[in-house]
Amino acid sequence: MAGVIGYRRIDQYLMLYLIGLGLSDETDITVKGLEIVKRASRVYLEAYTSILLVDKDVLEKYYGRSIILADREMVESDSDSILANAQTEDIAFCVVGDPFGATTHTDLVLRARELSIPVATVPNASILTGIGGTGLQLYNFGQTVSMVFFLDNWRPASFYDRIKENRSIGLHTLVLLDIKVKEQSLENMARGIKVYEPPRYMSVGTCAAQMLEVEEDKGEGVYGPESLAIGCARVGGRTEKFVAGTLKELVDADEELGPPLHSLVLLGKRTHELEHEFVREFALNKENWDRIWEKDYKGNL
Amino acid sequence: MAGVIGYRRIDQYLMLYLIGLGLSDETDITVKGLEIVKRASRVYLEAYTSILLVDKDVLEKYYGRSIILADREMVESDSDSILANAQTEDIAFCVVGDPFGATTHTDLVLRARELSIPVATVPNASILTGIGGTGLQLYNFGQTVSMVFFLDNWRPASFYDRIKENRSIGLHTLVLLDIKVKEQSLENMARGIKVYEPPRYMSVGTCAAQMLEVEEDKGEGVYGPESLAIGCARVGGRTEKFVAGTLKELVDADEELGPPLHSLVLLGKRTHELEHEFVREFALNKENWDRIWEKDYKGNL
Repeated sequence: MAGVIGYRRIDQYLMLYLIGLGLSDETDITVKGLEIVKRASRVYLEAYTSILLVDKDVLEKYYGRSIILADREMVESDSDSILANAQTEDIAFCVVGDPFGATTHTDLVLRARELSIPVATVPNASILTGIGGTGLQLYNFGQTVSMVFFLDNWRPASFYDRIKENRSIGLHTLVLLDIKVKEQSLENMARGIKVYEPPRYMSVGTCAAQMLEVEEDKGEGVYGPESLAIGCARVGGRTEKFVAGTLKELVDADEELGPPLHSLVLLGKRTHELEHEFVREFALNKENWDRIWEKDYKGNL
Repeated sequence: MAGVIGYRRIDQYLMLYLIGLGLSDETDITVKGLEIVKRASRVYLEAYTSILLVDKDVLEKYYGRSIILADREMVESDSDSILANAQTEDIAFCVVGDPFGATTHTDLVLRARELSIPVATVPNASILTGIGGTGLQLYNFGQTVSMVFFLDNWRPASFYDRIKENRSIGLHTLVLLDIKVKEQSLENMARGIKVYEPPRYMSVGTCAAQMLEVEEDKGEGVYGPESLAIGCARVGGRTEKFVAGTLKELVDADEELGPPLHSLVLLGKRTHELEHEFVREFALNKENWDRIWEKDYKGNL
C-alpha cells in the first residue's frame, strides 16, 4: 500500500483503500491493488468523475469479484454505507486513474477520519502523466483546468484566468473535460423523479468551441483560433489518439478523434523544438501547423 | 499496452516496451506490465534516474526473470545492445515511476524509431501524482523543477526562475532531487579508470540549503527562510513520510525524514485552506507554521 491521506501512516493496519485502476482496461490495476480487491469485503467503483474503456462486467470477471457502482449521490450523501463495518473489514474503493487525480473523494476520506477508519491509497497512472504520450514534457505544464458543459445561462469561465496565468509564463495547459453520468433533467429533478439522462462526455470539439466563445467574450487575447493545441482521445488506451491543430481546426476534429474520453492540451509559447517535432506528427494540417509554429512559437524558449 | 511514443499506434504489434514500475516495491507493477515482463526476451531496469525502495533481486524473484541493470552509459552510448533483435522479440525496458516522468529515454526511443522498432508504454504511478499524498491539490502545481548537487564552481540555478514564475501566479512547485549512481570521480574519469563512487541521493536538507543559498545570491525575494514547504521521503512507499516547515527548518529535517528518496514541495501563496489543514498535520513546529500561514499565505485565493 502506498500513500497517506492526512496524518495516517500507511504501515498501520488499514481498512479503507482508495485504489487507482489506471487509465484503460482491467489489466491496468497494479498487482498490489488486485490483491486488495480480491480480499476486500466490498468493492466499490467510483463511476462519475471518470470511466475506464471497459465495462463493469469485464472488471468483475477479471477481478473475480462483484462490484458496487458508487455514483455521486452515494459518495456524497450516503458515504456511511460505503464505510459500514470498515473498522473490522477491508473496503476497496476503486477510482479510475490515480486516487489523487480527482478531488471529489475528500468527503469520503474526512468521514472515514471522523469514524476513526484508517485510509490508504494504491497509486496508479493518471491522465496527468498519461498526457506525456503527446510528446510534451510533463515538467512544462502549468496548472490543470476543467471545462464543464455550458448552459444558456451558466458558462463558468474560471478556466480562462488559469490559462492566462499558464500562458503568461509559457506553459502548456491540460484541460480536463466534463462528464455527465446519471444526471437528472431539471424537470425530473423538480418533480423528484429519479430518471436519469443518458451519459454525456464532452468532446474536444465542444471544448475548443467553448474556449473560443469565452475568448470572444473576454477579448484579452489569452489564446485565439490560431492557437496550437492537441486533441486527445482515450489516453492510455489501446486506441489512444492524438490530433494536433489550431483551436479552430479542433472544433471539427471529433470524428477524427473517435469515442470518449477526450481531453485537450493548449500549447505554451515556450514549447521546445523537440516537443514540436513529436507533436507535429499528429497535425491535421502540417502546412498550417508549420506556418503558425514559425510565426508564433518557435524560438520562444 | 498503453501510450504512444511518437506516431506509432499501440494496437500494432510491438517490440520495445517502456514499462512503469510505480514508486515503491515489486507489487506496484501493473498486471499488464507484469505479463510483458514475464514474456519478454530481455528485461532491463533503468537504474540511474530513480530507484525503487526494494533491491533488484527482490524484483527478479517476484517477476521470475533475471534483470539487466541499464546504467546511463548503456542507455546513452550503447542503446543498440538494448534494442538488439527487437524486430523479432519483445524487449521490456522497466522504468521506476511512469515512463513519461523521466525525460532521459528520448535517445532510446529515437534510436528505436531509426531502426523501425515500434515502441509502446505501460503507464504507472509517478512522483508527479504521488505527491498528492501531501494533501496539496495536483491542479495547483506549476512546472516541476530539478535540483542538482552543487559543486564549488558549478551551481546551476535555472530552477530559480522557474520557481519565480510559479510563485508569481501562486502555484506550488515540486522540486525533484538529484541522484548520483555509478558516477566516476573527476580524477578517475581523467585517468580512464572505471571505478565508481558510492551512490548519493540528495536530501531535503541539502535541497533547502541550496535553495536559500541561491536566493541569497540573487536577492529577488522569490522565497526565503520563512517560506513554507514540505519535505517528502519515499513517496508512495510503506514508510512514506512528510515533514512540513519553513525552508530554514527543513535544512535540518533530514533525520526526521529518514532514508532516500527525498523530494520537496514549495507551497504557493494561493494555498487553499483545506490544503493547509492537511499539510499542517505534518508541521515540525505548528506554532511557527500557523504564525507564517496567517501572515503570508491565508486568504490569498
